[in-house]
Amino acid sequence: MSILLIGSLDDDDYADWKTHLLAHLPAGETLVLANEPHDVDAVEIALVANPPHGTLARYPNLRFVQSLWAGVDRMLSDPTLPTAIPISRLVDPALTQAMVECALASVLLLHRQLPAYVRQQARAEWKQLAQPLAGQRRVGVLGLGALGGACATALAGIGFAVSGWSRAPKAIDGVACLSGGAGMEQLVATSDILVNLLPLTPDTMGILDARLFGRLPQGAGLVNLARGRHLVEADLLAALSSGQVSHAVLDVFAQEPLPGEHPFWAHPGITVLPHVAAYSAPESAARIALENVARHRAGQPTTAMVDPARGY
Amino acid sequence: MSILLIGSLDDDDYADWKTHLLAHLPAGETLVLANEPHDVDAVEIALVANPPHGTLARYPNLRFVQSLWAGVDRMLSDPTLPTAIPISRLVDPALTQAMVECALASVLLLHRQLPAYVRQQARAEWKQLAQPLAGQRRVGVLGLGALGGACATALAGIGFAVSGWSRAPKAIDGVACLSGGAGMEQLVATSDILVNLLPLTPDTMGILDARLFGRLPQGAGLVNLARGRHLVEADLLAALSSGQVSHAVLDVFAQEPLPGEHPFWAHPGITVLPHVAAYSAPESAARIALENVARHRAGQPTTAMVDPARGY
Ligand SMILES: NC(=O)c1ccc[n+]([C@@H]2O[C@H](COP(=O)([O-])OP(=O)(O)OC[C@H]3O[C@@H](n4cnc5c(N)ncnc54)[C@H](OP(=O)(O)O)[C@@H]3O)[C@@H](O)[C@H]2O)c1
Ligand SMILES: NC(=O)c1ccc[n+]([C@@H]2O[C@H](COP(=O)([O-])OP(=O)(O)OC[C@H]3O[C@@H](n4cnc5c(N)ncnc54)[C@H](OP(=O)(O)O)[C@@H]3O)[C@@H](O)[C@H]2O)c1
Repeated sequence: MSILLIGSLDDDDYADWKTHLLAHLPAGETLVLANEPHDVDAVEIALVANPPHGTLARYPNLRFVQSLWAGVDRMLSDPTLPTAIPISRLVDPALTQAMVECALASVLLLHRQLPAYVRQQARAEWKQLAQPLAGQRRVGVLGLGALGGACATALAGIGFAVSGWSRAPKAIDGVACLSGGAGMEQLVATSDILVNLLPLTPDTMGILDARLFGRLPQGAGLVNLARGRHLVEADLLAALSSGQVSHAVLDVFAQEPLPGEHPFWAHPGITVLPHVAAYSAPESAARIALENVARHRAGQPTTAMVDPARGY
Repeated sequence: MSILLIGSLDDDDYADWKTHLLAHLPAGETLVLANEPHDVDAVEIALVANPPHGTLARYPNLRFVQSLWAGVDRMLSDPTLPTAIPISRLVDPALTQAMVECALASVLLLHRQLPAYVRQQARAEWKQLAQPLAGQRRVGVLGLGALGGACATALAGIGFAVSGWSRAPKAIDGVACLSGGAGMEQLVATSDILVNLLPLTPDTMGILDARLFGRLPQGAGLVNLARGRHLVEADLLAALSSGQVSHAVLDVFAQEPLPGEHPFWAHPGITVLPHVAAYSAPESAARIALENVARHRAGQPTTAMVDPARGY
């Protein structure tokens, strides 16, 4: 019985993951790769990195799916996905740390008005702008999971006035935790900078739209580090034009790579990052994924379980 | 006997400081302003914000000078400054917090390679660059005083591998503290990002020069938040040309405002900030300055004493 590695990966990525997985593979386990011939019936466990739609359904004896990615929205949108078996996603402290660093960099960029100073520099203008301290800057974080929770805590640690939003009520030291529709309204209305770290689900798709922008304080900043389809792109362009949103840092896009002719590239109010906030590093993720596999093999509860009905 | 407010200030600044000083002035004290008629002989204490050279020498009965600024280099370079009386500078938690936020923003900007991504965005290029975690990024902080020490601690708190340099040996939790000439060599050779928070003194003027740049790791980032004359501008331009320094964030300049024709404005490897890292806010600084005045009046030791011989 074997463990399959399968994903939207090129041969180099397969080889890289294989090296790190073999380094942590428990004795007695066999690893097979989807880009090499293998016995389909022998596969009981799949380690997946955005498996192409339709592929997992080919394994009749699959018992457990462990994602090597944090986000599982693309996999969950596969109508042939075997949803009766347990699915776990990746929660990796190294990936969380990378996301925290990217969120801090993005929020501090907006907080310290660097886009405005870059524009001033382009016209050789020496002008000091009023600068509040972090404690006077309200940051709202949508999503308080593995990533959003850590980012909210780190932002509060620097001194920002942080609120966060999740589905179920939460308590996080130093963060004003809100939930539900009313909580969402309150968070948005009081976010000078809004950071999105929600998973992409039917409920959250298009959540960053004209309605939400209209409820932000005038001139708010936006940071989208989650998924491109959380954002209604035309609505952001309109909110930037009206000044309702002053600047957006975007790491994710509905279409990636962002097409060459896309208006975001040349927009002075948008910082485009090429999906670099936090990636799964095989160095740490291979070990974490195989630890969850070992739990499954031992009949223990696996961690970071996904609920396909809920969408994350 | 009165307290004088004197500085390189316009009438609005005088009025602003006056409002906040009066709010905290102890009973029995009199405040006079240098831009208004006043009895020179009655002045025993001066609250100073870069007093024009020659002005303090006009007060024969001066007993104590309290700066409203953190940096006192301009005042100390006044050859007529009465150096036999005690001089204190400003140490203000609000100013320190502002500097910490600016240092974090600047270092994270370089750490997360935002200048490179901005250049890619300008040519609509989608390319993911290798991204180390903060723990793999070595940040060196020159100066471990009120500001440098707080910045070093905050950078270490985010996860950077931080070293710091001071004149006398120091111990700061989570920061590798170095001192002396050998310590300086070691710090520079191991700083992927170098942050300057030294005071400007005869010893530190021009410290950011070709020799120092040559000892940095290839492609290091530079953040100068202290004084413009710490930097040899021509040497930075050469180090950027050769790629020895990859990018510099500069908040301070030998001449301020930076002249319109200065090559820094249009340089793609330089982020120009118009001296906005941290300014003295009368809201907090007035109270702190007058608390030190009260200590002086009560014959208690004043805090944040300046040593004119040492230059800071
Ligand atoms: N840009 C990048 O490089 C990158 C890298 C990795 C991940 N990501 C994205 O980041 C996302 C978040 O990852 P994570 O590990 O933090 O996920 P997670 O642990 O599953 O957390 C999701 C959070 O969102 C909340 N949430 C979900 N649906 C909601 C709704 N309808 N209303 C209110 N709150 C809702 C959840 O609330 P509860 O706590 O109540 O369940 C939870 O707090 C991933 O899904 C992925 O898309 C991006
Ligand atoms: N850009 C802005 O907006 C802004 C705002 C405020 C201040 N500043 C600048 O920031 C500077 C630092 O302020 P601060 O309040 O932190 O000063 P500070 O408390 O006096 O600290 C100075 C630090 O530099 C070290 N140092 C001085 N000379 C040295 C030398 N020759 N070799 C090695 N170390 C040396 C000192 O070492 P010891 O600890 O051994 O004495 C001390 O750690 C100010 O002087 C000012 O120029 C800039």
